[in-house]
This record gives sequence, C-alpha cells and structure tokens, in this order.
Amino acid sequence: MGRMPDTTTEQGVYLNPAGEFTRDQRYIASRITRDGRDGYPVEPGRYRLVVSRACPWASRAVIVRRLLGLEDAISMAIAGPTHDKRSWTFDLAPGGIDPVLGYERLQQAFFKRFPDYERGITVPAIVDVTTGQVVTNDYPQITIDMSLEWRDHQRPGAPELYPEALRPEIDAVNEVVFKDVNNGVYRAGFAGTQEAYEKAYTRLFDRLDWLSDRLEGQRYLVGDTITEADVRLFTTLVRFDAVYHGHFKCNRQKLTEMPVLWAYARDLFVTPGFGDTVDFDHIKRHYYEVHRDINPTGIVPAGPDLSGWLTPHGREVLGGRPFGDGTPPGPVRDDEAVPLEHTPEG
Amino acid sequence: MGRMPDTTTEQGVYLNPAGEFTRDQRYIASRITRDGRDGYPVEPGRYRLVVSRACPWASRAVIVRRLLGLEDAISMAIAGPTHDKRSWTFDLAPGGIDPVLGYERLQQAFFKRFPDYERGITVPAIVDVTTGQVVTNDYPQITIDMSLEWRDHQRPGAPELYPEALRPEIDAVNEVVFKDVNNGVYRAGFAGTQEAYEKAYTRLFDRLDWLSDRLEGQRYLVGDTITEADVRLFTTLVRFDAVYHGHFKCNRQKLTEMPVLWAYARDLFVTPGFGDTVDFDHIKRHYYEVHRDINPTGIVPAGPDLSGWLTPHGREVLGGRPFGDGTPPGPVRDDEAVPLEHTPEG
Repeated sequence: MGRMPDTTTEQGVYLNPAGEFTRDQRYIASRITRDGRDGYPVEPGRYRLVVSRACPWASRAVIVRRLLGLEDAISMAIAGPTHDKRSWTFDLAPGGIDPVLGYERLQQAFFKRFPDYERGITVPAIVDVTTGQVVTNDYPQITIDMSLEWRDHQRPGAPELYPEALRPEIDAVNEVVFKDVNNGVYRAGFAGTQEAYEKAYTRLFDRLDWLSDRLEGQRYLVGDTITEADVRLFTTLVRFDAVYHGHFKCNRQKLTEMPVLWAYARDLFVTPGFGDTVDFDHIKRHYYEVHRDINPTGIVPAGPDLSGWLTPHGREVLGGRPFGDGTPPGPVRDDEAVPLEHTPEG
Repeated sequence: MGRMPDTTTEQGVYLNPAGEFTRDQRYIASRITRDGRDGYPVEPGRYRLVVSRACPWASRAVIVRRLLGLEDAISMAIAGPTHDKRSWTFDLAPGGIDPVLGYERLQQAFFKRFPDYERGITVPAIVDVTTGQVVTNDYPQITIDMSLEWRDHQRPGAPELYPEALRPEIDAVNEVVFKDVNNGVYRAGFAGTQEAYEKAYTRLFDRLDWLSDRLEGQRYLVGDTITEADVRLFTTLVRFDAVYHGHFKCNRQKLTEMPVLWAYARDLFVTPGFGDTVDFDHIKRHYYEVHRDINPTGIVPAGPDLSGWLTPHGREVLGGRPFGDGTPPGPVRDDEAVPLEHTPEG
C-alpha cells in the first residue's frame, strides 16, 4: 500500500514486541457499488484512482483496470515514486498538481473526508471527483469491485478475473499468497530482530516452493485463465529481484534462479495488461529512496539487468487460455504509457 | 583489509569530495625476508599470521599459506568475524585471548610496536611472537613473500604461485582486478553519492565481462596453473553473492548468473586450498553486522543458497594443470578446519 509509515521515523509502529512487522490493515471500507449502498454508486467519470507504479498493492488496481478496459470509466492519477512523511505527492503532474483533483498530495483527499485521519495515507485510493473526498483505500476490495460492480462499463472482451465458480479457490490461494509472499517480503525486510526476519524468510521461500510445484504443470494459479490470483502474485514477483531480493534480504535465490516461477512471471509480463504497466525505475527509486531506515544512503542500485524479462518463457506448451472467452486489451493509452527507459526494452 | 574504519562513524574518512570511497593504502611495509634486511628474517615458528576468515584481503594469505604448506612455519590466529571500533578481537579463542600472543585484540600488537599508531588495524597482519609487535599488514606483499622468501620452508610439491616468467602478466592482471573488482565492490558499496556508485558499478561489471571473456577459453587467469592472480580474484568472487551483490549493490547479475565466472569460481572452490578455507558464516556476519552505516538493523541475510558451489563446473575440458609440477595440499588441519555448518556441505 506504499503507506507513509514505511519511512524511518514511523517504522516502529509496525513492529510488535517480537520485532515482527505487522501491517495496519484498517482501511477505509466504503465501497463503490452498483446499488450505491455506501453512497458511492458506480458512475463512469465520477471517480479517480490514485496509484503509484512503485507500489505492488496499487499496481494490482492498475493491472485490473487495464485488463478490464475501465480506463474511460475510472480515470487515473499517478503519484511520483517517492514521498515524504506526509504523503504521496503528484510531483509528476504539471506544476506538481493533479489536474483533476487540484491536489498536491493524496493526503488532501483523505483530510477532505476525515479531517482527523490518523492512519496511513495509502495507494491505491479512489477519490470522488465531485467532492474531492477519498472513497476507499481498501485495496483487496478495489480490484474485486472493478471485476464485479463495474461490469457494465468494462470493455467488450474483458476477461473474468474473479469467476464465481472459482472464487473459493482464488480466495484460498490469495490468502496464503498474501500472508507469506505479498506481505511476507515486507515481514522479512522490516523485521526488527534476526529471529523475526528468519521466520518470514522461511515462510516466504517455503510458500514460493509450494507455488513453484503448483505452477510446474499448470499455466495459471487457478483454472486455465488469468485471474485475480495471478494479478496478486505477479505484482510481488515482478519486484522480487529489483527490490525484495537485496533490499528486503529475500535472498535464498533470485526469481531468475527459480525456473518455474521465473517462467510464469515472464509469461504474465508479456501478457497485455501486466508488464506494460510496470515501471522498474519507479519501483527501485521508491523502495531505496524512501526506506532510509534500511538504506540510509538512499543510493538506488543500477541493477538488476532486466533483459531476461523478454526471453521466451515456453509456457504455451502448458495450454491455458489467458483471457478465457475474452480478448487481450489493446495498446496502452499514450498518456498512461510507462517511459521506455523504465522498461526492459529501454 | 577488514579495517576498523569500515564502521559507521569512521566511514567518512574514506570518501573524497566526489563521494568516492578511497582506501587508505599506507601499510606497515616491513618485510620478512631471507636476508632479514628489515630486521625480520625468515624463521619458522617466529611469526604469527593474524586473519579473519571474513576478510577477502586476509583470505588471500590463508589460501596461499595452505597452498604452500606453511602451516608449521607460520602459525595462524583467527579473529572473530565482527569487531568494534577499536579492533579485530580474538573472541573465538578460549577466554577471548589468543593463546600464543596473549592478546585480546589485534590492536595491542600494533600499539606494542607503534604506541601512537593512528591508521587502520587491519588483517592480514603478521606479528613477531618474540616481541609481540606487528611486523606488517601489507597484504599484497605478504602473499608474494610467502611464495618467494619462505620457499625453503614450503611443503614438498608446493606450487609456484608467482613464477618468474609470468610475473609481468600476473602483476598487470592483479592491478586491474584490484582497482575494478577487489576494491571495486567496496567503491560501489561505500559510495557516498549516486554518481560515485554508478561509476564503480560500471567499472566493476565491465571488468567482470573482460574477465569472463578471458576465462572462457582458458582455465586460469595467467598461464595454465593456479597463480597469485587466481587467489586474488577468487576471494572477491566467493563473496560476491553472499555480500557484494545485495549489501554493496553490485547487482547487475549474481555470480551464479555469469556462467564463465561462476564455473571458474566453482573450479577453484573445489581445488584443495581454496574452498576449504571459506567460512560463509563469518563472511556474512562481518559485512552485515559491522557496516551499520549501510545495514542499520544488523540483520544478516539467511541466503543465498550455497548448494550450487558444489555442482560440477566442467572446466577440466579446458586442460590446465592446477598445481603445475607440484601437488595439491593435503587435508586441512583439524584445528584450522571451517565448521561444517558454515560451508555449502553444512
């Protein structure tokens, strides 16, 4: 969630007495729904998704929005990769002000709704453009609602990322992937004691071994198409060698040394909607510049070499129909394209 | 040289105005020679080599001493992997006191000779047991003198590590390997600016590419036997993935991803006298626990997986005669064996 308390002075709030990183999971739970029961009905043009391409939790929403073709229905503001203690900022926008919201910082949308808001100012967040107030930053719900509540506004051929018949299995996979992998890398990186670190490390790599076994003979995590489960695993895997391996000490192997997961990640990377949303420059700068508590110099590694991402993955032989009965999304819109020099082609 | 100023408060002394790490290379230049011209004649049993297995510069001397079979002629004290600001300590010895020197810290041997010694207390150092005074810490000279000045006390079958005919070429290779690789990793890791880091990173990997090209068709760096040049490159390569890749941000690739260099390093690793001196636990603990300026938590990574070190390297096909007209050293002495759990077999 790329939350503020990842900064030095606030990291302490994440450590329990055993030195274990614990993520504050109390998010703003208002939902945008078809029936508008929380006061936020689905309505094209009304909401703005605020993300950072650095953040794995926000990147889920970036990918799902693109896979489903919701670009016209929900606009997107991309915050800069780094931030100060107060908030993610719109420093990439002309004049440092988001042209739609008129804000300099995401924090303003949170305070507009909750003047005394004390928890993390996190991405992804959805802001109601009509009021300038944040609606939700509940990232696991945001992508599910894009799939289910926004269906009427999805592009023709949008894939089913959360098909009803597979939900129990997707939910089960997501739960262990969240605990041991998505959040597991943070538990390793922000551990306050050697013991807490090693516990997280072991759980992470045990789970990656389990995932590798699962993916050896099947192309996707659940069923024979891409689903929400793949999106959630991908956003961690794509950051693995760039930041988690060194910065978070998740270094039993690099992703490039785990053949099944590496091929799986490359397969998704070249699937339209995945790799074309990834900005390695933002990813590296965020983690290495913001977390001064574990990288005091703020120096950003020049590696790793990214060229391997585009090598043949060979997983077509496993079959699978990436988009099921749907179709891949078209090219990325010009105004949302990742700069070429931040990609493996650059 | 595993010097004291690697600690947080003293790191500054290494940075020039451009933020580049610069190594203080003024060592105690007294030499132990056959003719005793500096007052230190070659004499079996008179000197004690003080090392840390963590330190790449000291490890050169550990390897050369073993390859040449000088164990009986020059005894060895192994300091613990970590140290405080004052000095390397003999905390691994019974009671924390070196049984031969009677010292708790290497610093005492430096002060015994130079009461006002102000430079780094570094390993390797050789101490005159008869006076308790340090003789030299001039690491590049120490190994050369073991080869040339101590010849009468080497084991039968000791290899020629610095053969006369190859010296110009060995010296030339050593010079660029020192600047760009041995010291290059430190220049990357301790850089004070992004620019200084990137300069060191580029020089390092350019040189590794050059070494890879050179070693693709020949088994050893110079000639067809192991020489001083291989020893000096090995001690950096063996630490590459364990510490330099992550801790020092030398992360274009891991050593395991550079096929020629990885096979070359594995070939040396299983050559008696090389891998059997390597203590990965000491290596990791030293860098990650001592350099709090770049790893404030002091947490030591659990990885990398070391099992790859013992996989077949396949370089026998290139020919070469590792020990030339000599023979490999016998097994490591019991009292100098690396604990099994600190090795790839453990």
